[in-house]
Amino acid sequence: MSKYAIGIDYGTQSGRALLVETATGKEVATAVMEYPHGVMDEYLPDGKTRLEPDWALQHPQDYLDVLQEIIPSVLKQASVDPQDVIGIGIDFTACTMMPIDKQGTPLCFFEEYRSNPHAYVKLWKHHAAQDEANRLNEIAEEREEDFLKRYGGKISSEWLIPKIWQILNEAPDIYDRADRFIEAADWLVMHLTGEEKRSSCTAGYKAMWHKQDGYPSREFFRALDPRLENLVEEKLSKDIYPAGSKAGELTNEAASLIGLMPGTPVAVALIDAHAAVPAVGITDEGKMLMIMGTSSCHLVLGNEEKLVPGTCGVVEDGIIPGYFGYEAGQSCMGDHFEWFVEKCVPFEYHEEAERQGIGLHDLLTQKAEKLAPGESGLIALDWWNGNRSVLVDADLTGLLIGCTLITKPEEIYRALIEATAFGARMIIETFEENGVLIHELYAAGGIAEKNQFLMQVYADITNREIRISASAQSTALGSAMFGAVAAGRDRGGYDSIREAAEKMAGAKELAYRPNPAHTKVYDQLYEEYKLLHDYFGRGANDVMKRLKEIKRRASRQN
Amino acid sequence: MSKYAIGIDYGTQSGRALLVETATGKEVATAVMEYPHGVMDEYLPDGKTRLEPDWALQHPQDYLDVLQEIIPSVLKQASVDPQDVIGIGIDFTACTMMPIDKQGTPLCFFEEYRSNPHAYVKLWKHHAAQDEANRLNEIAEEREEDFLKRYGGKISSEWLIPKIWQILNEAPDIYDRADRFIEAADWLVMHLTGEEKRSSCTAGYKAMWHKQDGYPSREFFRALDPRLENLVEEKLSKDIYPAGSKAGELTNEAASLIGLMPGTPVAVALIDAHAAVPAVGITDEGKMLMIMGTSSCHLVLGNEEKLVPGTCGVVEDGIIPGYFGYEAGQSCMGDHFEWFVEKCVPFEYHEEAERQGIGLHDLLTQKAEKLAPGESGLIALDWWNGNRSVLVDADLTGLLIGCTLITKPEEIYRALIEATAFGARMIIETFEENGVLIHELYAAGGIAEKNQFLMQVYADITNREIRISASAQSTALGSAMFGAVAAGRDRGGYDSIREAAEKMAGAKELAYRPNPAHTKVYDQLYEEYKLLHDYFGRGANDVMKRLKEIKRRASRQN
Repeated sequence: MSKYAIGIDYGTQSGRALLVETATGKEVATAVMEYPHGVMDEYLPDGKTRLEPDWALQHPQDYLDVLQEIIPSVLKQASVDPQDVIGIGIDFTACTMMPIDKQGTPLCFFEEYRSNPHAYVKLWKHHAAQDEANRLNEIAEEREEDFLKRYGGKISSEWLIPKIWQILNEAPDIYDRADRFIEAADWLVMHLTGEEKRSSCTAGYKAMWHKQDGYPSREFFRALDPRLENLVEEKLSKDIYPAGSKAGELTNEAASLIGLMPGTPVAVALIDAHAAVPAVGITDEGKMLMIMGTSSCHLVLGNEEKLVPGTCGVVEDGIIPGYFGYEAGQSCMGDHFEWFVEKCVPFEYHEEAERQGIGLHDLLTQKAEKLAPGESGLIALDWWNGNRSVLVDADLTGLLIGCTLITKPEEIYRALIEATAFGARMIIETFEENGVLIHELYAAGGIAEKNQFLMQVYADITNREIRISASAQSTALGSAMFGAVAAGRDRGGYDSIREAAEKMAGAKELAYRPNPAHTKVYDQLYEEYKLLHDYFGRGANDVMKRLKEIKRRASRQN
Repeated sequence: MSKYAIGIDYGTQSGRALLVETATGKEVATAVMEYPHGVMDEYLPDGKTRLEPDWALQHPQDYLDVLQEIIPSVLKQASVDPQDVIGIGIDFTACTMMPIDKQGTPLCFFEEYRSNPHAYVKLWKHHAAQDEANRLNEIAEEREEDFLKRYGGKISSEWLIPKIWQILNEAPDIYDRADRFIEAADWLVMHLTGEEKRSSCTAGYKAMWHKQDGYPSREFFRALDPRLENLVEEKLSKDIYPAGSKAGELTNEAASLIGLMPGTPVAVALIDAHAAVPAVGITDEGKMLMIMGTSSCHLVLGNEEKLVPGTCGVVEDGIIPGYFGYEAGQSCMGDHFEWFVEKCVPFEYHEEAERQGIGLHDLLTQKAEKLAPGESGLIALDWWNGNRSVLVDADLTGLLIGCTLITKPEEIYRALIEATAFGARMIIETFEENGVLIHELYAAGGIAEKNQFLMQVYADITNREIRISASAQSTALGSAMFGAVAAGRDRGGYDSIREAAEKMAGAKELAYRPNPAHTKVYDQLYEEYKLLHDYFGRGANDVMKRLKEIKRRASRQN
C-alpha cells in the first residue's frame, strides 16, 4: 500500500500541488492554478484604488482558492485515497507578508479595509519600502548592529521590517489594527493547522531573526521609530520552529475544505528556493544548489556560522535542521538573456530561426556554442539588474567590453552567459575564502534543465562538476519531502530530511564536467572579470552610480 | 563670359568631375564613373592570381578611363566651351601608390608584370604591409627619430614607406625594375602635364617628408634595410611643390584625350580630405574641418609647427600654402552606427520603420532625439575599430557601460553617437592643450549633411558652433578652386586660395549652436568618458589588448 505526501508550492503567479509517493519519490500527479487576482500592481480589486509605482500586492483569498482546487485535483488524477496522504509541506515566495487580526483573518477581508492597499498581502517584489530600507540600513550601520553582517551588510526593501515600517508610515491605522504581521507561508500553515508555528526559514532570511540572538533589539527598533519599539512582542512572534519540523495537523475545517483527512501532518513552511535544497539530495555541507531562473539563488549548507561578505543571509536551521543555511543571489540571469533577445537581435536572425523552426534562444545558442572560449574577445559584467552577491549594490549597471566592427550577436549572447557564470564563480570563491567550502554544484530551475550549453559554460568557468535536479518540480518535491518528515516513519514517512532525501530525491546521473582546455582559457578571462568587477564594483571608479544619478536628473527634466 | 574650373576627385570606388563657375563657385555640372576594376582584393585582372587577405589594389588604367569619360560629360551637360575651362585641380585617396618606369608608365601595364600583384596600384586601404610598419616604428623609436613626433608617434601601414618596403621584401624584381614609386595623385598630374611635380600634401602626410628636414635620413633607411639606403634619391623625388601652386599645363596629348584645350593649367594635387578644407571657406588658423563618413578626419591650420600627441601629421604647406596643416582621425564613425543597425536592431524596429516608410537610421534617430542628454545612463568608448587619435592604438576595442534591463536600442544608438563626439572633443582639447587653438568647427561629408540630430549632439558636446559645408561635393569643389588658383587672376581665376575661397566657397548660413543645458550635462559625461578613456587607453588596464590576444589564440585553435 503506497503512501503519499503533497508538496504545495506558492509561486508569484500560481500555486502548484505535487503528489509524491513517499517510498520512491515518484511524482504521481501535479496541478497548477493561477491566482485569480494575479499580481496587483495597478489597481486594488475595487477597480478604483490606484497603486503607486513599485507596489506589488496579492489577495490572500487566492491562496485558499488555489488550495481548494489543486489538492482535490491531484488526488483525483492519481485516484489516491486521502487516507494515504500522510503529510503536507508548503513553500512560498518570501517575504510575502500581510497584516492579520487576532483570529488570523487578513485585514483586507474586512469590508472597511477593502480599499486600503496596506491591508493586502505585500508580495516579495513589492519595492515601495525602499526609503524605509535605506533608513534602516543607515541606522543599523551607525549602531554597528551585528545582524547586518549576517546579511552581507545590507537589508533589502523586500524584507519584513521595511514593509512593516512602510505600513506604519503610510497607514498607521492598519498598523494599529493589525494584531500581527505574518509571512503568507506561515499564515497558510496556521490556516491549515490552527496553530501559528512560524518558520526559522522565513524568520531567519527575511526578518533578521537569529536562533541564539533572536530579533534585533528593542533599542534598534526604537531607533528606527519609537512606535516600533515593541514590534516583536506586539506584532510578531518569538516562537520560531526549525525547518524540517512538524507544525501541526489539519483541522477538521481545513481538511474538509481541501479534501484530505483531519489530522494529516503539516510541516513548518519554507521559502520556495530553500525547499528545493533537499530535493536535489543536498542534506549536508559542501554542496551548493544554484536555482537558475529569471534571477538566480545560491544555497549552501555549513557546519558553522561564518560571516560571508555580500551574501544574502546565514540562518541556523534555515534550510536543513542542524546546519547553517547560506543564501546568495545574482539579480540578473534569464532576464539578462531575455533582454538581449528582445532588444538586440537583428532581423535576419529572426528569419533564420523561423526557417529552422526554432526559437531565438536556440538559434543564438546554436551559433554561440560553435565559438571557442575567448574567441569573441568580449567580456561583460552581468550587472544589468545591479549586483546582489557579492557587492550588494543595486546601482551597478551592465558593461560590455571588447566590441569590434565584426562582433556578432551570438558573441554578445555568449559573453552575457559567461558573465553570469563568472558572477557565480565570484560567489563560490567568496564563500570559500570565508570558510564555507563548496565541493559540488547542483542546479535546478528552467535554465538549468533546458540550456545544456549554458550549463557546460558554468562547469568550465567554475571548474566544477554540476549535477542537475532529477525533478523538474524540485521546489514542490522538497515541500512534499518536508511533509513526509512531518508525518514521520511510523505513518509511512521519514524521521529526518536526510532519510527522505535518500529515498525521494536526487540529481540526474549525467553531470556537466569541466573541459580542462576551456577552463584554462576561462581562468584567464576570469582574472579580467575580477579586475573589472573590483574596479567598477568596489569604489575605484563609481561611474555607474554617477551615470545613474545623471540619468535620474535627466529623466525628471525630460 | 563665365569661366570655369574643373575639380577631379578620385575616391575609393569612383572618380568624379565637378565643373564650377570660378566667379561665383556655382556648381554647374558633375559626372561620376565607377572604376571598371573597382577595388581588387581577391584576384588580379588575369582572373587567376589570387590576392592574400588585407590586400587592396587598383588598376591605373581605370583612372585614365574615368578621366576620358567624366570631363567630356560635364562639358557636354553644361554646354561649356573647353576654351572657358581655365584650370584643373585633382585630389586623390592617399597613400595610393604605384611603381612606374622611367617614362612614367605603371609597371602593371607591361605584359610581363600583368600577373604580379606588386606591379599594380596599392590602394590606401591595402593593409598587407603591417609587418613592415611595425618594424619601421620599432626602428624609428629605437633611433629616436624626430619625424615620429610629427605623426603622433606612429607610422601607419597605409603609408608610402611600408608599402614600398613590402614590395622590396616580396617582389624585389619589381622594386629593382621600378624607376620611381609615386602617389596616384602625383602620377595623374604628371600624366596630364608631362611634368613630375609631387605635392607637399601627399609627401608630407604619407611619406614623412618635411619642408625643412626633407625625408628621413639615409641612415634611417639603411637601418630599415641596406637596400633602402638610397630610396629617396633613386626612387622618389626631392622636388616637392606646395599645395596651392601650379604643376603645369595640359599637354596636347592629354588635352585631346579629355577634350580640353592644350595649355590649360593644372594644380599640384591634394589628398581628397585635405582638398575640402578651402571648400568650406577655411584658409587660415583656428578652424577645424571634420569630414564625417565611415571614419572621420579632422583638419586644422596653424601658424606654427606644434607637436600634438596622437594626431596623424603636421605638414607645412600641406593644405594651404603658408600654414601648417594638421590632421587627426577617428577610425570609426559611420561604420560604428552601421554595425549597430546591422547587428543589434530588433525585429519590431524593422517593422516599425517599414510601416513608417523610413530607414532604420531614421527610426533610431527619431527615437534617440527624444531622449535628454544623460537620460540613457549609458556611455560608450568609440573604439569599435581601434583608436586613431589621440591614442594611436588599433588594438583598443569598444566598450558600453550603464546597461540595464530596460535599456533600449535607441539609447545605445545615441550613446554610440555621443561617444564619437566625445572622441572628437578629446581631439580638439588635445590640439588646444598643445598650442593649436580651435575656435570654429566646420563639417562636411555624408553624415554631416544628413544627420541633423548627430550634428546637434556634436555642437552640444564640443560646446562649439558647427557650420556645414555649403557644397555637397566639397572635395571636388576644393580641387576646382585649386584649379582656379593654378590659372591665376589673369586667366579668370585667382591669385591665392584665400581669394578663391572668398568667392567660390563657404558654409551654410545655418549653424548648429550648443544648447547650454545640454552642454552642462555633457560636460559631466565627458569627465566620465575621459576617465574611462585614460583608464583603458593609457595602460592602467590593458584588458582590451589581453582580450584580443586571447581571441587570436582561441580563433587559431577553433
